[in-house]
Amino acid sequence: MGTKRGSAAVVGPGEVEAPPVRRARGARMAVLLGPEQGVPSFITRRFLLSPGAYIPRHRHPTIEHEQVMVRGEMVIDLDGEERTVRAGDAIYIPAGCAHSYANRGATEVEFLCVVPVTTDYATEWLEEPPDGAAPA
Amino acid sequence: MGTKRGSAAVVGPGEVEAPPVRRARGARMAVLLGPEQGVPSFITRRFLLSPGAYIPRHRHPTIEHEQVMVRGEMVIDLDGEERTVRAGDAIYIPAGCAHSYANRGATEVEFLCVVPVTTDYATEWLEEPPDGAAPA
Repeated sequence: MGTKRGSAAVVGPGEVEAPPVRRARGARMAVLLGPEQGVPSFITRRFLLSPGAYIPRHRHPTIEHEQVMVRGEMVIDLDGEERTVRAGDAIYIPAGCAHSYANRGATEVEFLCVVPVTTDYATEWLEEPPDGAAPA
Repeated sequence: MGTKRGSAAVVGPGEVEAPPVRRARGARMAVLLGPEQGVPSFITRRFLLSPGAYIPRHRHPTIEHEQVMVRGEMVIDLDGEERTVRAGDAIYIPAGCAHSYANRGATEVEFLCVVPVTTDYATEWLEEPPDGAAPA
């Protein structure tokens, strides 16, 4: 844990931008709690995946993810194993684990993804961007 | 960040117990991602607050909380300032900030609360347990 503390804050869903996820199709991400609030240890983000969205396979050598599905259903690939996850499911992706996300349903997917505060957020992409992807 | 990595995991909502929160009325907490998955840095928990639930005012001198409301509406007191929070709101509670939770509505509240992995999870209670509280 760092020495920063920041101030107590409530951040409403309309108060944060959700720009497109680079190299992905139909995916947006908002930082809910992070540097702006002065968080010391971990960062809470919200992902929104439109129907047909795809975030190609990649891994973070030093960063884990802890996720909770809030709405919808998607297929997540964890080191080559596909799992269908739904609202209420929690997902742990350890550092080094290759993962991708696909919304094959007809409704938007929302999930939360918490990552450590770090100066070393490296990403190794293991697939080319899909058709219709946002710029790298 | 620690050196543990654990294995990738999907944890369904029915797979974890949600025992009563000590010193609180009508509140239960489930650890979704934590020691069982070998997480290195932070722990993801789910809180469920029945109508009428109350978690009395307390603070953690060294531990911050990052929270996201999933369902319902509750009143959270942050260092003496009451805020009404609803599904979609994110809440940052820095270390040392006194806080309490009240579900004054008619429907169950669900929120997620992420805390650091630590060997020093100290709590200072600033109020007596309410009527009907679970044992300390």
